[in-house]
Amino acid sequence: MLYQVEMTVLLPADMDEAQAAEIKAREKAYAQDLQCQGIWRHLWRVAGSYSNLSIFDCRDNAHLHEVLTGLPLYQWMKITVAPLCRHPSSIHEDDR
Amino acid sequence: MLYQVEMTVLLPADMDEAQAAEIKAREKAYAQDLQCQGIWRHLWRVAGSYSNLSIFDCRDNAHLHEVLTGLPLYQWMKITVAPLCRHPSSIHEDDR
Amino acid sequence: MLYQVEMTVLLPADMDEAQAAEIKAREKAYAQDLQCQGIWRHLWRVAGSYSNLSIFDCRDNAHLHEVLTGLPLYQWMKITVAPLCRHPSSIHEDDR
Amino acid sequence: MLYQVEMTVLLPADMDEAQAAEIKAREKAYAQDLQCQGIWRHLWRVAGSYSNLSIFDCRDNAHLHEVLTGLPLYQWMKITVAPLCRHPSSIHEDDR
Amino acid sequence: MLYQVEMTVLLPADMDEAQAAEIKAREKAYAQDLQCQGIWRHLWRVAGSYSNLSIFDCRDNAHLHEVLTGLPLYQWMKITVAPLCRHPSSIHEDDR
Amino acid sequence: MLYQVEMTVLLPADMDEAQAAEIKAREKAYAQDLQCQGIWRHLWRVAGSYSNLSIFDCRDNAHLHEVLTGLPLYQWMKITVAPLCRHPSSIHEDDR
Amino acid sequence: MLYQVEMTVLLPADMDEAQAAEIKAREKAYAQDLQCQGIWRHLWRVAGSYSNLSIFDCRDNAHLHEVLTGLPLYQWMKITVAPLCRHPSSIHEDDR
Amino acid sequence: MLYQVEMTVLLPADMDEAQAAEIKAREKAYAQDLQCQGIWRHLWRVAGSYSNLSIFDCRDNAHLHEVLTGLPLYQWMKITVAPLCRHPSSIHEDDR
Amino acid sequence: MLYQVEMTVLLPADMDEAQAAEIKAREKAYAQDLQCQGIWRHLWRVAGSYSNLSIFDCRDNAHLHEVLTGLPLYQWMKITVAPLCRHPSSIHEDDR
Amino acid sequence: MLYQVEMTVLLPADMDEAQAAEIKAREKAYAQDLQCQGIWRHLWRVAGSYSNLSIFDCRDNAHLHEVLTGLPLYQWMKITVAPLCRHPSSIHEDDR
Repeated sequence: MLYQVEMTVLLPADMDEAQAAEIKAREKAYAQDLQCQGIWRHLWRVAGSYSNLSIFDCRDNAHLHEVLTGLPLYQWMKITVAPLCRHPSSIHEDDR
Repeated sequence: MLYQVEMTVLLPADMDEAQAAEIKAREKAYAQDLQCQGIWRHLWRVAGSYSNLSIFDCRDNAHLHEVLTGLPLYQWMKITVAPLCRHPSSIHEDDR
Repeated sequence: MLYQVEMTVLLPADMDEAQAAEIKAREKAYAQDLQCQGIWRHLWRVAGSYSNLSIFDCRDNAHLHEVLTGLPLYQWMKITVAPLCRHPSSIHEDDR
Repeated sequence: MLYQVEMTVLLPADMDEAQAAEIKAREKAYAQDLQCQGIWRHLWRVAGSYSNLSIFDCRDNAHLHEVLTGLPLYQWMKITVAPLCRHPSSIHEDDR
Repeated sequence: MLYQVEMTVLLPADMDEAQAAEIKAREKAYAQDLQCQGIWRHLWRVAGSYSNLSIFDCRDNAHLHEVLTGLPLYQWMKITVAPLCRHPSSIHEDDR
Repeated sequence: MLYQVEMTVLLPADMDEAQAAEIKAREKAYAQDLQCQGIWRHLWRVAGSYSNLSIFDCRDNAHLHEVLTGLPLYQWMKITVAPLCRHPSSIHEDDR
Repeated sequence: MLYQVEMTVLLPADMDEAQAAEIKAREKAYAQDLQCQGIWRHLWRVAGSYSNLSIFDCRDNAHLHEVLTGLPLYQWMKITVAPLCRHPSSIHEDDR
Repeated sequence: MLYQVEMTVLLPADMDEAQAAEIKAREKAYAQDLQCQGIWRHLWRVAGSYSNLSIFDCRDNAHLHEVLTGLPLYQWMKITVAPLCRHPSSIHEDDR
Repeated sequence: MLYQVEMTVLLPADMDEAQAAEIKAREKAYAQDLQCQGIWRHLWRVAGSYSNLSIFDCRDNAHLHEVLTGLPLYQWMKITVAPLCRHPSSIHEDDR
Repeated sequence: MLYQVEMTVLLPADMDEAQAAEIKAREKAYAQDLQCQGIWRHLWRVAGSYSNLSIFDCRDNAHLHEVLTGLPLYQWMKITVAPLCRHPSSIHEDDR
């Protein structure tokens, strides 16, 4: 089941650089692992901002919640969620 | 080049049913033709609303404008656009 | 799977009274049938407004979309949707 | 008498972990006690966020105020309240 | 139990004058009757607008809903509601 | 002359407790003194929040400004003001 | 006593031209009469819009309400009001 | 050429008192000097808030920018600007 | 003197096509004449919408107002205006 | 390909002055270099605020993102982006 998720990262300007680098490295590993598993189906950067547009494929709402709250950057993010479903005009079998 | 486009359709409640059906049929044909060409890459319904989340792959901003203003439902739509680019953590070669 | 849905009805002030009564009767029958099936789990009126707060229990996002767009008053409604899941502090087994 | 209450928790990112854990433990105990008493009737997590949707059953507005301001996390919460009443189409006797 | 209610009236500019006058007369009678009963405790005009600030004293949320939806101008109003309770610094016994 | 005033208090979560208690005590004394003088005519708590709805009776706009900026909690408040006048349907002689 | 008033005129695009001209002529006469009396102290056009910024000098809130609701264009206007008072740094004796 | 300028001052609650007093004294001197020169034509306090409504008379946009960024309190202000011009119904020769 | 102007055109969906075409033709001629005179310095389409971003070079605020209210589509437009001035980092002599 | 970009700088009031001066100097050099290259086509100050309106000419969305995130002041900026294209009524060949 698919969800549209938009995340904006708001790191404090005075965060320790080493700490920031370490969290971002974990975030990247976490994102790539979920992509490999097919859970994080799409991940795009919104041009000009520290935001992304993502499509998640989860078993249910609880699974989505577990995945998002596990993000290493979660506590510094503003997140919006919208449940998606297949569009009657779509020709892409996988965009269910 | 990719763009996030969100469209909400606002048809007047008293629109002639035959006219509405005819416009929607043209809209569907238009959407499917653009999907076949690879220009309208993704098309999802936002659950519970007469809205969609779409990803377009266009040559440039002018191409995007031409494609969107050609929508048969264009004059009854509220549309938002955000330019996208590849995310550094993406593993999907095609989500450029 | 549960969803929070808020609906506000905006009927035009000059709508034919008989037509309005007929649509509202169909809306009531539809709502009661879905409650009997356990799909529309809760339905409350927001005091002072022509709005409701509802909890739906659907198989997935597509099921929710089908149920909401089937509402006889759908085209006169403003609807918001939020996916819900079990709260770690909840003691109600059924509020999953 | 029922009320819709939505709470969003905004803990500072640099809060002492032990202090945060202690407040959250007290919050959980408080929430479960009120649920046992039937005052906090429903408690759901909004998927993807540190927010909940709750239904309270209180004697009156003053009782609601006392219950909410007693929340251990109260000073870090953004709270909205809407008074509810029975919906004429509801078949659930208890959703008064 | 007290509630803060704010109402803004939005009559269409082309409404028949006799019809508007008749509805407003019924609105005034309704408002004065509820004031006599002590239900509509305060009624002020917001200077410069077709809005009012009102304090209602109702048995419960359902009573408030019944009173507000009975307003002759109800379908042309935008209404907001907030539940009130006694302020700990108030010296007015009646502002419970 | 009457004014609707809504105040929301936003004290920093890490304010010294003794300092907060001292300011709140001064605020209470100030509020009660103005109520005794008939200037602060009504003071209600908005249920569930650290906000109030108040009605002030002041000689003029300058008097209102002097009274509000004299509040001990003034610098931590968000305040909105609306000038009120007698409603043509009011039966309360004092709600001028 | 001074008030800041901002008015935006929203005439329907299909209003009868003669009717519009007649109302605007009455509006102008009304505005000039109030300026001659010293009640409408300042009247500026906001560049690029059918809006104005005005300063009114009224006896009290009720007087302001009477003056504004008497505007021939009143029912097609969106109006905001803010009460003003003398600024401690002002050197203009008349900007009380 | 005239501009409507609205300024809201947001000083941190923990600012050093002597520093605040010194900046406010410079702000007052600056404001009075510009009033003497006829550049800051009007300056009113918005009742109940640490805001003002001002009318500036500047040679051009660049002059306005220079004057506003020179305000001693500039970095703690939220400022909005609207260009004004003579209203066709104005009788005040000077409100050009 | 430069101004940023953003215009969004909102033509009613049922406008007579010949009338719309005639107004748009006049709008185009008007826009091109002002560009030839150097008053309408830049005119861009915002991709995906019936909006433009424009830069005007006018003698003063009154000139800007005269130019904008003369637009044949003016009554169907939503317009925002911001006064511009030379940026200290600009190397373009003409972007004053 | 052109983009409208609006940037607002929000430096903390207590930032070290030497550090702020150093960052601003790098920002200026960066802006002037991009202007020389023809990438940052226009740069205007919005009068009265620490904001600018800019037009960028980039190869694609990814190029725009790279240019904006390279701004020395980037982490203290609020940025909005809109893709532009040639307006059918434009006579300026270069405003493509």
